[in-house]
Amino acid sequence: MAGNSFGQLFRITTFGESHGEAIGVIIDGCPSGVEVDLDYIQGELDKRKPGQSKITTQRKESDTVKILSGTFEGKTTGTPIAMIIPNEDQRSKDYSHNVDVFRPSHADYTYATKYGIRDHRGGGRSSARETAARVAAGALAKLLLKSQGIEIVAHVSSVGKIDAPNVFIDNADEFIAQREQNIVRCADPATAEEMIAFIDGVRKDGDTVGGKVSCYIKNVPVGLGEPVFDKLHADLGKAMLSINAVHGFEFGSGFSGSEMRGSEHNDIFMKDAEGKVITRTNFSGGIQGGISNGMPIEFKVAFKPVATIMHNQQTIDGEGNAAEISGKGRHDPCVVPRAVPIVEAMAALVIADHLLRNRSAKI
Amino acid sequence: MAGNSFGQLFRITTFGESHGEAIGVIIDGCPSGVEVDLDYIQGELDKRKPGQSKITTQRKESDTVKILSGTFEGKTTGTPIAMIIPNEDQRSKDYSHNVDVFRPSHADYTYATKYGIRDHRGGGRSSARETAARVAAGALAKLLLKSQGIEIVAHVSSVGKIDAPNVFIDNADEFIAQREQNIVRCADPATAEEMIAFIDGVRKDGDTVGGKVSCYIKNVPVGLGEPVFDKLHADLGKAMLSINAVHGFEFGSGFSGSEMRGSEHNDIFMKDAEGKVITRTNFSGGIQGGISNGMPIEFKVAFKPVATIMHNQQTIDGEGNAAEISGKGRHDPCVVPRAVPIVEAMAALVIADHLLRNRSAKI
Amino acid sequence: MAGNSFGQLFRITTFGESHGEAIGVIIDGCPSGVEVDLDYIQGELDKRKPGQSKITTQRKESDTVKILSGTFEGKTTGTPIAMIIPNEDQRSKDYSHNVDVFRPSHADYTYATKYGIRDHRGGGRSSARETAARVAAGALAKLLLKSQGIEIVAHVSSVGKIDAPNVFIDNADEFIAQREQNIVRCADPATAEEMIAFIDGVRKDGDTVGGKVSCYIKNVPVGLGEPVFDKLHADLGKAMLSINAVHGFEFGSGFSGSEMRGSEHNDIFMKDAEGKVITRTNFSGGIQGGISNGMPIEFKVAFKPVATIMHNQQTIDGEGNAAEISGKGRHDPCVVPRAVPIVEAMAALVIADHLLRNRSAKI
Amino acid sequence: MAGNSFGQLFRITTFGESHGEAIGVIIDGCPSGVEVDLDYIQGELDKRKPGQSKITTQRKESDTVKILSGTFEGKTTGTPIAMIIPNEDQRSKDYSHNVDVFRPSHADYTYATKYGIRDHRGGGRSSARETAARVAAGALAKLLLKSQGIEIVAHVSSVGKIDAPNVFIDNADEFIAQREQNIVRCADPATAEEMIAFIDGVRKDGDTVGGKVSCYIKNVPVGLGEPVFDKLHADLGKAMLSINAVHGFEFGSGFSGSEMRGSEHNDIFMKDAEGKVITRTNFSGGIQGGISNGMPIEFKVAFKPVATIMHNQQTIDGEGNAAEISGKGRHDPCVVPRAVPIVEAMAALVIADHLLRNRSAKI
Repeated sequence: MAGNSFGQLFRITTFGESHGEAIGVIIDGCPSGVEVDLDYIQGELDKRKPGQSKITTQRKESDTVKILSGTFEGKTTGTPIAMIIPNEDQRSKDYSHNVDVFRPSHADYTYATKYGIRDHRGGGRSSARETAARVAAGALAKLLLKSQGIEIVAHVSSVGKIDAPNVFIDNADEFIAQREQNIVRCADPATAEEMIAFIDGVRKDGDTVGGKVSCYIKNVPVGLGEPVFDKLHADLGKAMLSINAVHGFEFGSGFSGSEMRGSEHNDIFMKDAEGKVITRTNFSGGIQGGISNGMPIEFKVAFKPVATIMHNQQTIDGEGNAAEISGKGRHDPCVVPRAVPIVEAMAALVIADHLLRNRSAKI
Repeated sequence: MAGNSFGQLFRITTFGESHGEAIGVIIDGCPSGVEVDLDYIQGELDKRKPGQSKITTQRKESDTVKILSGTFEGKTTGTPIAMIIPNEDQRSKDYSHNVDVFRPSHADYTYATKYGIRDHRGGGRSSARETAARVAAGALAKLLLKSQGIEIVAHVSSVGKIDAPNVFIDNADEFIAQREQNIVRCADPATAEEMIAFIDGVRKDGDTVGGKVSCYIKNVPVGLGEPVFDKLHADLGKAMLSINAVHGFEFGSGFSGSEMRGSEHNDIFMKDAEGKVITRTNFSGGIQGGISNGMPIEFKVAFKPVATIMHNQQTIDGEGNAAEISGKGRHDPCVVPRAVPIVEAMAALVIADHLLRNRSAKI
Repeated sequence: MAGNSFGQLFRITTFGESHGEAIGVIIDGCPSGVEVDLDYIQGELDKRKPGQSKITTQRKESDTVKILSGTFEGKTTGTPIAMIIPNEDQRSKDYSHNVDVFRPSHADYTYATKYGIRDHRGGGRSSARETAARVAAGALAKLLLKSQGIEIVAHVSSVGKIDAPNVFIDNADEFIAQREQNIVRCADPATAEEMIAFIDGVRKDGDTVGGKVSCYIKNVPVGLGEPVFDKLHADLGKAMLSINAVHGFEFGSGFSGSEMRGSEHNDIFMKDAEGKVITRTNFSGGIQGGISNGMPIEFKVAFKPVATIMHNQQTIDGEGNAAEISGKGRHDPCVVPRAVPIVEAMAALVIADHLLRNRSAKI
Repeated sequence: MAGNSFGQLFRITTFGESHGEAIGVIIDGCPSGVEVDLDYIQGELDKRKPGQSKITTQRKESDTVKILSGTFEGKTTGTPIAMIIPNEDQRSKDYSHNVDVFRPSHADYTYATKYGIRDHRGGGRSSARETAARVAAGALAKLLLKSQGIEIVAHVSSVGKIDAPNVFIDNADEFIAQREQNIVRCADPATAEEMIAFIDGVRKDGDTVGGKVSCYIKNVPVGLGEPVFDKLHADLGKAMLSINAVHGFEFGSGFSGSEMRGSEHNDIFMKDAEGKVITRTNFSGGIQGGISNGMPIEFKVAFKPVATIMHNQQTIDGEGNAAEISGKGRHDPCVVPRAVPIVEAMAALVIADHLLRNRSAKI
C-alpha cells in the first residue's frame, strides 16, 4: 500500500536506500520448481551495475546478490525468496553538500515534504539504485518465463534525437548477443557507435541526455491480461512508468496510432502456415482488449535526461531560501544503457504475474 | 484480482456488459461527509453518453444513474456507494452477424480464447460502455476533490494530425465552459472547428480516426504518490492505459523530454510572490520522484482509431476459417470527444486514492 | 480496504443498508463456465430470509435476487457477476425512536463516532441484512465447488446450553434434508425439538439467546491454503468472525485441544482401503500447517445473543446524556437458525478462493 | 497473495526457513517519525527465542536482529524497514531421519503435496521459527502504538487444564513485570508455579501439552476497525489463527457468550467520572459492529500441544508406505510461554494497521 510492492500473484517487495546497509527484494508467489540459475541472475545485475563503461557513472558496486530463502537444492520451493545486495561504495561525503538543499528535478523536495524526514545520502530510497532489486527479481521471473518458452528482449532505440532503425533478429539470444557488443546496448551497430559518441560528448559537457528503450516479448500465450483495469498493457505501462526517470510509455502503434484511420490501423486476422492465428499487421502490439493475442508484444519507454549534472544550479534550501547547488559527485550522462535490463525485468514481472493470474480464468 | 477493481483506499469495482441488464459500480472507501450532487454526476455522464452529437455513435442511451446505497440525507456515510445505470437500447440484433466471427482489432478473439465463452452482443464486457460506470464514480471523486480545492480539466488536444495550440485559461470552470461550446470538446475554438469538419468527413467515409486528450490537475497538495512502484504518474498511466483504445501515455515533458539535455530539462526551484515553492519550468509535470510537488500535473493520452468501421473486412471465424465481416451497426467516428470525461474521471479516482493514502505518511 | 470486500481471487464486494433501496454483491474472479442455477441461489436465500418461522424476526422480505451481469446463456463468463436484492419492508418508523440514542451492544455508537454520520434506520450498514448478499455470492461459490465434488454442510449444534450430539450422516444431501425438517436447523431431531421449545420461551420473555453452528467441508483436495498468514483456517476464522454476532471460532480440536497432550492429539497418518492417505483421528480438523490435508474440515462458530431485546434498557444519547431505549420492533430471539446458510456461504467463499489460489503453487 | 504478507497499510512480509541462511521481515507502510528503540525490539525477540529456560526447546539461537533499511538517525523515514535475523544453530542432521517420512500433525505431508518439493530441515518454512520475524515487526508496531498511548499485554492464562484466575493490574508495565518473574509467563504467581511443575512433568514424559494466551489492549481510540469483512476482531482472529499451533480464538464473552441471554449480555452505555463514554460490562470485548468502542479489547487464543514429541510414532513415508518416526531432536514441551510475545506482536500489527486505515473514515 505504501508502494514498495508490485504484482498480484508473482509479487515483489523491495527495500533499501542508496547508502544504507543493503538493498534487496522478497519475491512472494513464485511457483515451486523453478530452477534457480544464480549465474544468470548475477549476469542480469552486471548489465545494470554502475561503473561498467565510460558512459555510466563511476560509482563502484559489484552488486553481488545473495539468496537468503525460498530455494532448496537449486529449485524454488513456493516460499518467499529473499535476495539481498549489500551496498559497498557508500561514498556519502559526496552528498554532504546536499543535506539541506533541494536538487532540481530530484525527489528531495517531495520526500522532505511528504515524510518530514529524509535520508539525503544519494537520494536515499528515491535513488535508481533500488532498481537493482527489481533486476534480481526480474531475472528469476525470466527464468520462470523461459521454462514456458517466453522470451523478452529490449534495447536502446533512441538517445536524444538519434533513433535506431528497426532490427530484425527473430532469435532472442542473437538479438541480445548483438546488443551486448556495444556499451550503449543498441542492437543496431552503426547507430550504437553514433549514440556512444554523442553520449561521450554530453558527458564531457557535464551534461546528460534522455533516450528510449524498445522492448519485445515473444511466445506469449493467448489470454494473459485481465479485462477492464488490469489490462496487460496497463500493467506494463505502470511497471515502466515506475522506473526512475521514465516520462512516457506507448505500445503497438502508440502515439502515432492516434494519427491513423481505423481502416489502416485494424489488424486483420489470418492463419499462418502452421495454422496458428496471427494478424497481418501488429498495430495492436500483441494486446487486444487488454489481453495478449499471441502476436509479439511491443512497447517503447521514454526516459528523461538524468537530473544530476555537473553544472552549478540555482535552487532553494529547506527553509526556502535561495541557494546554489554545485555540480559534484558521480553521475550517468545517459541512463538508457543501464535501463535495458530494468525494462526487461519489469516486463518479466508483469508477464509472470499475468501468467499465474490467467490460471483462474476458466473453471 | 480479476481486474475489475481500481484504487486502493478509494476503490471502485465496475460490472456490466454492453447489452446486459445494467452496468454499474461500487465505490468502497469514500470518506463520510462528501455532499453528493446527483445533478453533477448525471451531467458528467451526459458528456460521455452516446448519441449526443453528429460525431458520436447514434446508439440512444439516457445513461440515467441511480444510487442504491452509501448515502444518507445527501451525504456519503463511509459505507459502499453502489450506482447503477440500466441499459436501454440493447439492439442486440445488430450484432447477430458477429456471433461467430472475430472483429479485427476488437477483443472478440482474446476473450473467446481466454474464457472459452463470450457474450458477443456489442462486445459484452469489453465494450467501452463500461466506462460510464467509471465516469459516475469519478464524478463522485471529483466532488470529494473539489471540497479540497483540487480541480481537474481535460480537453481534446489532437484529432488525427490536427493539433490544438496550448490554451491558457487558468480558471477550471472557464476552461470547461469554453471546451463545452463545441461538440469535439477542444478548448481552442478555431481548432475545434477544423477537427469537427475532419471527423465529419471521416464519418462519411465509414472510417474512424484517433486523437489525443490532454489533462491538467491543479491545486494538488505536495506529497501525493507513493515512492517506487505506486508513483503518482505510474498510477495515472495505468488508469489512462486501462481506458478502451488508449495506446500511449506521457506526462510532463513526455516523449519529447527524452530528446532533451538535463541542463535544459531540470526544473529550477524558486518561490512565488506568496512564498509558495514553485519551479521555473514544469517539465516534471508536477511530479518528482513519483510524488506531487505542488505544480500543475500535466499529461497526455493517445487513443487509437475506433476499430468498428463501416467497411467490409477480412477475418476468421471461431473455427479459424476465413470469413468476411460487413460494416453495419452504429459507431463512433472518433472516440476522443466522449473520452474527455473518462480521462477526467480516471484522473480523479487516482488523485482521490492518493489523497487518502497520503494520510498515513507521517506518525 | 474499507472492508467491504472478501477474498483474493474469488472476491466479493457487498453493498447496501438495511432500509435503503437494495443490497447486493459483485463477485469478481468467478471462473467462466460455472452453470448458474438461480433456483438454488434463491433457495439458499430463502433459508436466511426473515419471517420464515415463529422463531425468527417477523420482518417480511422475499429477498428475491436478480443477476445483472456476468452470465450468458446460463453460464458464468469470467466477468463480474452483480446480484441485487431489493429491500421491500422498510418499516423505518420502527426505528424513529432510536435516531438519537445508542442501542446497547449494537454498532450505533461506534459508527457514529467513526463516521460522524449514521444511517440509523435498522442499523444501516451494520445490520445483519448485509449477510443476504453474502449468501447469494456463497451460493454461487457452492455451485462452483459442487462441480469439483466439494460439499459444505452446517447445522445448529448448540442453543444456549443445549448441545446436540454428533450427527453421523456422511451424505451431504441427506444431512441437509434432515436438518431442514425442523425450523431450528439442527440435524439431530430430538435436540431440535428441545432447542425450539427453549427459543420460543426466550422469545416470549422478549429476550434472546446465543448458540453455535458447526460446519463440515468434505472432499477438499489436499493443498488448499497458503502458508504463514493466509492459512486455510485463518481465512475461515476471519470469514466466520466477520459474521454479525460471532464471538468465537475454533477448528479441529479447538479450545479443548489446548487441554490435551501431544501424544493423544497427534493425528497418525495411514492409508484407507482405496489407498488414499488419511489420518486415524482428525484433531487437526482437516488442516495441517494451514493447508488442507484431505480429511474433512471441521469448525465451530459461537454466536452471542442478539442485542435487540423487547425490554427497556438504560443507555446514553448522542450528546452523552442518560436515556432509555424502549423494547419495540421486530427481532430474532436466536440468530443461529438463520445463520446456518451464512456460515456455509462464507465457508464456500473461502474454499473457492483457495481453490483458485492453489493453482499457482507449482510451475 | 501467496500468504506471506499481513496487514493493509501497516504491512509486513516475512521470509525464511528454519534452517536456511536467515529469516526476516519487511515492514512497508510504517509512518515516518517513529523512534526506533532497537533494544526494545531485541528484548521482545529475547522473550520468544529458544533455549531461554528449562521448559523451552534447547535449540540455541541468539536471534539477533539487524535493521537494513528504512531508518535514518534513529527514526523511521516512511520507506520499507527490512529486518534480518541470521540462523545460527542449524543442526540439520537432527532432521535427516525425517527426510522421507511425514511427521504426524506437522505440515510435512501438506507441503510436499502442495508444492511437490519440500525443505525438510526443521519444517522449513512451516517452522514456528518464522514467528521471530513477526515479533521483530510487532515490536516496531508496539513502539508506534506506545507513541499514541496504546498498550498491549498478554500472558499465559491456561496450561492444559490449569487456568489462571483473572489478574487485576491496570498498569501495563506492572503487568508485564509480574508476568516476567516466572518462566511460564503467567501474571498470577501461584498459578505460574503450578503450570511450570506440570510442564516439567510433561517434558520428562517426552510429551507436550497445549495452553491458552489471554491478551488485553488498552487505550484504543474509538473507531478502529472496518465494517463488514475487516471487523477489528475478525482481523485479530485471523492474526491469531495464523500463529503456528493455534486452534481457537474468542473475544469478549467468546464461546461462553453463546450460552447467555441478551438481557444479561448487553453492555449498557454510561459515562465515567471524567465524562468518557464507557460500558458497564464488557462482554463486547471492546468491539461493537467490528469497531473499537474505547473499552479494553480482550481476547483469548487456544494453542494445541506441540506435535513434536519424544515418542516413536507410526506414520507413512513419501511413497505412502508405513513407517515409524523416532522421537529425537529438541522440542518445546509447551509452546505458550514463548507464544506470549507472538500474540502481542500480532495484536500490535492489527491495531497499527487499523489505526492507519481509520484515517480515511471522514472527509
